[in-house]
Amino acid sequence: MASDGCVFCAIVRGEADASIVHEDESVIAFMDLRPVNPGHALVVPRAHAEGLEDLQEDIGVQVWTVAHRLGRALRRSGLRCEGVNLLLADGEAAFQEVFHVHLHVIPRFAGDAFRIGADWRVDERERLDRTSAAVRSGLAALDVARH
Amino acid sequence: MASDGCVFCAIVRGEADASIVHEDESVIAFMDLRPVNPGHALVVPRAHAEGLEDLQEDIGVQVWTVAHRLGRALRRSGLRCEGVNLLLADGEAAFQEVFHVHLHVIPRFAGDAFRIGADWRVDERERLDRTSAAVRSGLAALDVARH
Ligand SMILES: [Zn+2]
Ligand SMILES: [Zn+2]
Repeated sequence: MASDGCVFCAIVRGEADASIVHEDESVIAFMDLRPVNPGHALVVPRAHAEGLEDLQEDIGVQVWTVAHRLGRALRRSGLRCEGVNLLLADGEAAFQEVFHVHLHVIPRFAGDAFRIGADWRVDERERLDRTSAAVRSGLAALDVARH
Repeated sequence: MASDGCVFCAIVRGEADASIVHEDESVIAFMDLRPVNPGHALVVPRAHAEGLEDLQEDIGVQVWTVAHRLGRALRRSGLRCEGVNLLLADGEAAFQEVFHVHLHVIPRFAGDAFRIGADWRVDERERLDRTSAAVRSGLAALDVARH
């Protein structure tokens, strides 16, 4: 499953430097090399998976569980942490840069440099109902593939 | 556990409009009223919890599992989806606006309006090691509280 040239696989194998905060049989978590704020961690499955599509469901659950605990730990760490963002980028269009799936755990405080922007506008119910029907059809397609 | 005046609790009770894509005994998912892109969903526990701190671990796992499936479903929905972001905002400093914990599942495509910005700079290993020690002390504090 390892991917040649994958920096996160190299960290998993102990062949690249990392400031590790958690390790278990399926997941590893370490400091992001380019932290949004001090304490910014990445939770990564040991087995190489590129994104949500090839991430095993049970391993994803482990990734989430560690991120949930890290989010709570940041508030007890002494680092500046008034809030927490969890962020996953799946695919280049979603700003994924390292193609080994990872969940960011980002401590936040008032006035920090992190920004999120979008063209937020209240949508019409009729359009929301149409898009929800499309999403449900996508869920059905997943169910069909599973059986 | 319900919180008076909480719009997500009102949706859970069926007292507020929502375009629902998934329901089970612990979790509900519906279209965000102000979508970043069409298909933008929110995954919400039925039981009111404000954030990561009061979210039960097993319920959090359910929230994640539904979000993982929705992320994959979006790519099969016919909606424009070249990538997916998962995003959780815990606390006002992290841009939380509705104080009933929710995980965003956002379909993305090249050239859309979603933006993320930060002061990304490669940090020094010595500083990363210091912050990772602080995070580990936060994890230890969590463990102590549990026992
Ligand atoms: Zn890898
Ligand atoms: Zn609520």
